[in-house]
Amino acid sequence: MKPELHELTATAIVAAIANGKTSSEAVTRACLEHIAQREPQVQAWQFLDPDLAIKQAKALDAGSSRGPLHGVPVGIKDIIDTADMPTEYGTPIHAGHRPHMDAACVALTRRAGGLIMGKTVTTEFANRHPGKTMHPQDARRTPGGSSSGSAAAVGDCMVPLAVGTQTTGSTIRPAAYNGCFGYRPTWGDLRLAGVMEAAGSLDTLGLIARSVEDIALYRNVLAGIATEAMSSVPCAPPRVGVCRTQFWDETDDATKQGIESCAATMSAAGAKVSDLQLPPPFDAIDEIHQRISSFEFARNRSWELNHHADRISETLRNNRLKHGLAYSFEEYREARAQAEQLRLLLDDVFRDCDVILTPSAAGVAPIGLNATGSAAFSSIWTACHTPSMTLPLFKGANNLPIGVQLVTRRDSDRRLFEFARWTAALYGVKTTPR
Amino acid sequence: MKPELHELTATAIVAAIANGKTSSEAVTRACLEHIAQREPQVQAWQFLDPDLAIKQAKALDAGSSRGPLHGVPVGIKDIIDTADMPTEYGTPIHAGHRPHMDAACVALTRRAGGLIMGKTVTTEFANRHPGKTMHPQDARRTPGGSSSGSAAAVGDCMVPLAVGTQTTGSTIRPAAYNGCFGYRPTWGDLRLAGVMEAAGSLDTLGLIARSVEDIALYRNVLAGIATEAMSSVPCAPPRVGVCRTQFWDETDDATKQGIESCAATMSAAGAKVSDLQLPPPFDAIDEIHQRISSFEFARNRSWELNHHADRISETLRNNRLKHGLAYSFEEYREARAQAEQLRLLLDDVFRDCDVILTPSAAGVAPIGLNATGSAAFSSIWTACHTPSMTLPLFKGANNLPIGVQLVTRRDSDRRLFEFARWTAALYGVKTTPR
Repeated sequence: MKPELHELTATAIVAAIANGKTSSEAVTRACLEHIAQREPQVQAWQFLDPDLAIKQAKALDAGSSRGPLHGVPVGIKDIIDTADMPTEYGTPIHAGHRPHMDAACVALTRRAGGLIMGKTVTTEFANRHPGKTMHPQDARRTPGGSSSGSAAAVGDCMVPLAVGTQTTGSTIRPAAYNGCFGYRPTWGDLRLAGVMEAAGSLDTLGLIARSVEDIALYRNVLAGIATEAMSSVPCAPPRVGVCRTQFWDETDDATKQGIESCAATMSAAGAKVSDLQLPPPFDAIDEIHQRISSFEFARNRSWELNHHADRISETLRNNRLKHGLAYSFEEYREARAQAEQLRLLLDDVFRDCDVILTPSAAGVAPIGLNATGSAAFSSIWTACHTPSMTLPLFKGANNLPIGVQLVTRRDSDRRLFEFARWTAALYGVKTTPR
Repeated sequence: MKPELHELTATAIVAAIANGKTSSEAVTRACLEHIAQREPQVQAWQFLDPDLAIKQAKALDAGSSRGPLHGVPVGIKDIIDTADMPTEYGTPIHAGHRPHMDAACVALTRRAGGLIMGKTVTTEFANRHPGKTMHPQDARRTPGGSSSGSAAAVGDCMVPLAVGTQTTGSTIRPAAYNGCFGYRPTWGDLRLAGVMEAAGSLDTLGLIARSVEDIALYRNVLAGIATEAMSSVPCAPPRVGVCRTQFWDETDDATKQGIESCAATMSAAGAKVSDLQLPPPFDAIDEIHQRISSFEFARNRSWELNHHADRISETLRNNRLKHGLAYSFEEYREARAQAEQLRLLLDDVFRDCDVILTPSAAGVAPIGLNATGSAAFSSIWTACHTPSMTLPLFKGANNLPIGVQLVTRRDSDRRLFEFARWTAALYGVKTTPR
């Protein structure tokens, strides 16, 4: 069945426009129509002005330049500054705030020919207190957080691409819940100028899409480098370490089955698959991550604490902020030093395996809109600064998506993409459309 | 001779207010009077509203809380956001821009009872194209950059404290030229939310003051931790490594003599002093620093490149931006990996010495207002993420200040302060006033 315009991936949109088969305006209108129909049940958008989106599309159609994202509508998480749209950081404290310039990642998106469809819902300050977004398949369920709107919008085919961020599991988890590919880059690779700092030692952008190719394309755009198509030759079967982690008991059956099935499928396809138990120092990683992120987060909210403490949610006050203000500087620094040691330890782990296979989340999107699900399955890799990707390979209860997560060594993002494509192909996951 | 109010250090101001000997308003008025007299020749301030400063001082005098910086006027580099003052990043592109909230460091300053005197001049985007500031002792000379106004304002006793930033040598060099103590913290320690990102892998805040105690005090405030007085017991004489660096031939005679004299004085006071030659991999550090900083800087200026490329200086276009856009991602990443190796190598160096003694700059502030002096003597330590401090111990040509720089291992900032105080005491450098 031929996909509808709003279902196309970014790569397919760029090709279709280049071939004269469609226009940016047509794609944008198709996405807007789909949004109009679905938004009441999903609430993915914090700001959306259809006229502004169409105006951008028309300008792209009329222009002479053809960037690598030419004509593609993109959703931007609402902790990322945009000059022509409000940026509210998920809190009433900043309601109506309009930055005077674009964040670096937004400016790079526009330079590549992307158009900013609107701002996607985030949790409060990209932490745990939820925004208004509901899971597209079940309004009683969370879409995950903190990149809630970005993941729901891509999963529901409102846009082909969205930018999120990740400080714990804020890209991988919602992408998995919503049946998307989600990518957290090697820490430090993609610039964060104009992005609200949650915890600088851990923050990265996160990309959400419906194909590996789209993520590879968009990552080059945001790195500010020449785009380069993925190799047409599939990679050789990798050495895979199956890492169930210390949180394995928290996973539901579908997640357990997914990991075991994926490991078996990879092995059958020639991969050398073995179990991987992280060395004992990794047992403390959740606590280490919590110390670093809380300490930094609490200081970054100093202005809001000075002036608007009463408008901060109880969730945030009684958790992240309370912990962050209670840790001593020595406890914080010790955690940072321990994280650095764990990064070196993990580098060693990658001598014996090319890619780690591990859950993306504990299970399908849980019921309840007052929380956003457990981030434990990402905190390990986030603290270790490694690149990772969630792949939407399985279904769990109520036909809800289950992702599996691939992780590679720091600075090997392009290999991660190759392994992800190799793995997705084993499951016949189409890159266009979903 | 009793110091005038505007000559007091922050520590002395806090004590005098606590003892009822003066008020924040009296101190602020004294600073403002001195500024009124000197500003035409120095031009340290990008924004200064005397009424706003006095209003803050009156509120502090009338209030009941007594923070650790109670009543102290502070200058803030104009790449750091302030909610009640413009923030223009040293470029006409952002003329008149007023952020809607304070940067974390500004909010922490206010919470501690500091008052924001105004915004100090920065070079364009904290890079090399100079602002309007002139050296307080000689209007033909640069005050250094990029924290030009911060260093000139503190050196000229317009304020006791100022915040700068450092991505190459932007705090240490101007502090040395202006006869101040200047401190660059361990990378990552002090939050940068609300500070323009130049190159995130290298950026830190920088503190400029007229005593070691003031720097120790303000660093605790900006780390968001309980302030803790320095030990009343001087530290034991340290093991000192005298590092002349590969740039030694660039130094003037006064700088060479200063380092040799300081080494001899430390030795006479019981320090174990030896020559320190950095291992060969450090020969490449200037190039490594240049790759990282240029690559990141160029991407962080994407919005300005999209919309205002013609209003960027030729200096910036033909240097930092040109290089940054020319490097490949692989060259960038290789440089980042090399820098990480050098950090580990330098950790090893610190097994055999407690503190490195090295020049702060090539010499006194050079003549010529179209450049800001060489940052080579800081780029090594900046790339290595170590804490460092410049101490105003010597005078060179025309009675202009010469600093010496002390560097300690990452994460040993408090030891750095102890060594700095020990060293300054050998020279009878008073902490109040200059």
